[in-house]
Amino acid sequence: MDLKPLLRESDAKIVLYVWDGLGGIPFGPEGKTELEAARTPNADRLMAEASSGLLEPVYPGVTPGSGPGHLGLFGYDPVEYQIGRGALEAVGVGFDYRQGDVAARLNFCTLDGKGNIIDRRAGRIPSEESKLVVARLQEAVRKVEGVEVHWAPVKEHRALLVLRGKDLGDGLADTDPQKEGVPPLDVVVTADTRENSRTAKIAQEALKQAMKVLASEKKANGVLARGFAKRPNWPTMEERFGVTPAVIAGTPMYRGVARLVGMEALDATNEIAKDVASMAANWDKYHYFFLHYKHTDKAGEDGNFDAKVHYIEEADAAISEIMKLAPDVLIITADHSTPCAMKGHSWHPVPALLWAKTARRDGAKKFCEKSCLQGNLGLRPSTHLMPLALAHAGRLAKFGA
Amino acid sequence: MDLKPLLRESDAKIVLYVWDGLGGIPFGPEGKTELEAARTPNADRLMAEASSGLLEPVYPGVTPGSGPGHLGLFGYDPVEYQIGRGALEAVGVGFDYRQGDVAARLNFCTLDGKGNIIDRRAGRIPSEESKLVVARLQEAVRKVEGVEVHWAPVKEHRALLVLRGKDLGDGLADTDPQKEGVPPLDVVVTADTRENSRTAKIAQEALKQAMKVLASEKKANGVLARGFAKRPNWPTMEERFGVTPAVIAGTPMYRGVARLVGMEALDATNEIAKDVASMAANWDKYHYFFLHYKHTDKAGEDGNFDAKVHYIEEADAAISEIMKLAPDVLIITADHSTPCAMKGHSWHPVPALLWAKTARRDGAKKFCEKSCLQGNLGLRPSTHLMPLALAHAGRLAKFGA
Repeated sequence: MDLKPLLRESDAKIVLYVWDGLGGIPFGPEGKTELEAARTPNADRLMAEASSGLLEPVYPGVTPGSGPGHLGLFGYDPVEYQIGRGALEAVGVGFDYRQGDVAARLNFCTLDGKGNIIDRRAGRIPSEESKLVVARLQEAVRKVEGVEVHWAPVKEHRALLVLRGKDLGDGLADTDPQKEGVPPLDVVVTADTRENSRTAKIAQEALKQAMKVLASEKKANGVLARGFAKRPNWPTMEERFGVTPAVIAGTPMYRGVARLVGMEALDATNEIAKDVASMAANWDKYHYFFLHYKHTDKAGEDGNFDAKVHYIEEADAAISEIMKLAPDVLIITADHSTPCAMKGHSWHPVPALLWAKTARRDGAKKFCEKSCLQGNLGLRPSTHLMPLALAHAGRLAKFGA
Repeated sequence: MDLKPLLRESDAKIVLYVWDGLGGIPFGPEGKTELEAARTPNADRLMAEASSGLLEPVYPGVTPGSGPGHLGLFGYDPVEYQIGRGALEAVGVGFDYRQGDVAARLNFCTLDGKGNIIDRRAGRIPSEESKLVVARLQEAVRKVEGVEVHWAPVKEHRALLVLRGKDLGDGLADTDPQKEGVPPLDVVVTADTRENSRTAKIAQEALKQAMKVLASEKKANGVLARGFAKRPNWPTMEERFGVTPAVIAGTPMYRGVARLVGMEALDATNEIAKDVASMAANWDKYHYFFLHYKHTDKAGEDGNFDAKVHYIEEADAAISEIMKLAPDVLIITADHSTPCAMKGHSWHPVPALLWAKTARRDGAKKFCEKSCLQGNLGLRPSTHLMPLALAHAGRLAKFGA
């Protein structure tokens, strides 16, 4: 439903506090989820006055990547609003990524003497080393057939390639073969257009020149490209929902997806106390804050139950500082589940807690999957969250007479 | 959502065990549903480790026929994928039903001296008698205006008519007036096209000739046609979901609907122990098994509460043999509710239990409508079941980066 005709002004503040990968399934002999095992006194106190529920990120059974998982929470249907990885990375690192640019995510890799991949992540070289490697590329490969070639470091073995020129296409397949013992793939088109064919040739040449430059490197002597993508041209959250939004996220990917919907990026470190302080310092400037907590997801991907429990408790502890800011609507939820039992993202609906004066109260005592299953928000698509947040912020007028 | 781009290989086995007409509403002084009254120790044990929920077959308040009820479970939206009864019967009896053929379901009926119907089911004549009657038609009425006319027995008073020729239409109304004391209706078109008009004339003539042949029969001296339909040309489950599917169903109708989505029909008898053995004998050949248990629905239609409870318990007892096969995903649910209190199909959502290692556990103790209402699958359309089954079988890759 288009909410634009219903939008009205409000000074209310909305905080979306995402505990990345929060949801779980039973783990170990006790059969508890991470959230059930964690002590979360602050979230539990909110639960007593909150409506809770379970949000289904993309579609039943569909496991979301980080981009789609967040877009749903922001009110953007991830099936309608699709983004390539390159686009996400480009916006995430703060690159001046313009309409028409084509970006790709790069992984440095290690090649053997025959040009076969022996490590798809170049031994996960540290960011400092990666920066030096990228600097060599920036110096050596700047233009191919009149098209500007930009290189940017991301983190560890990751980097960014951006092509800037007229009439470029992004219908290009990954050069990462997703396995070792074979050489990187050539750049081929996924749809046969003149733009794509020309761009494929240019990208291929740029990558070839890059590998020549890197030949002397011990670890990062090769490069793999994934997710070629133009910058999407989407309506902003301000246009669609009338809020001025900001993101506080220490990891480029999440800042990236937030910027694609028009959020402004505030200082962030992935240290939650500092990140809450950054939000506090900008409290008067925005209506909507997306505060991202990363460590829970990482622990889930590692299958480290105790660590995930620990990080959930750390995320919980930050709530008291957030509440001192007196938000009108505070939502705690996740972009997707990352059950330790599965060591990866999953499709399971995520717990969600919506605290506001106007919340119909569940009266639950503990924030967990089970209590959310019984909550007033029910089980529903993630895209329903944003209209609910706007309503509790007093931002939606009556529909119809 | 189109799942094709996400499909990936897996050896996991999915079993969809349908207890036909399972759902109920309170019955009698105790006010229990059939499932609440039944002892289902095997399903109850699964429930402790399963996610459960309620599935709405077609649309809120809409009572499904057997075809639509099953299509939803197979992941085919029954509103989008519509089939005439004739098409179902034709595929169900294993007739060589080709693209372009027009099929109709026939009921033999008894006519009085004036040609009025006195029994719409010809005293439910036994199948052996019906076969002889059909043999007479096969002999006598083989071609009308260059169009082949095929007759096939189904079961008891039911039979099949198939017209085969060029440019036939299936926009024809039923000739069954749905009441007694009046003659069969003429074949009329439901949409005025040249194909339909010509086919109506041919069908009318074929039925007229049939009634002449049957005039000497005591009971089956008339014939009523319903559900004229061409064979639908749908994408198969293998095309849409990447699984090789098989059906084990003793009743033609259910095999029929399963074949329309590309399932292969295995031996089936409507004796559940034998049908499970048939599945076991083919366990290595398929990824997805649709095992159909019929008797629960029949008892519901008869309004026989004790019989339905008995048959639920029989269906439950078969679970232990199924579990010996070590399926990765076992789903127990229904195509629709058939409450004894209503003596017919109903629109009420059906209980569903999904057992898999990756299930978020409800921890419920009893498989029934009430416990499913509290379950992790929530209340959702039947069409959501298939993507969930694929996810738990490890068949869906992550969506987006």
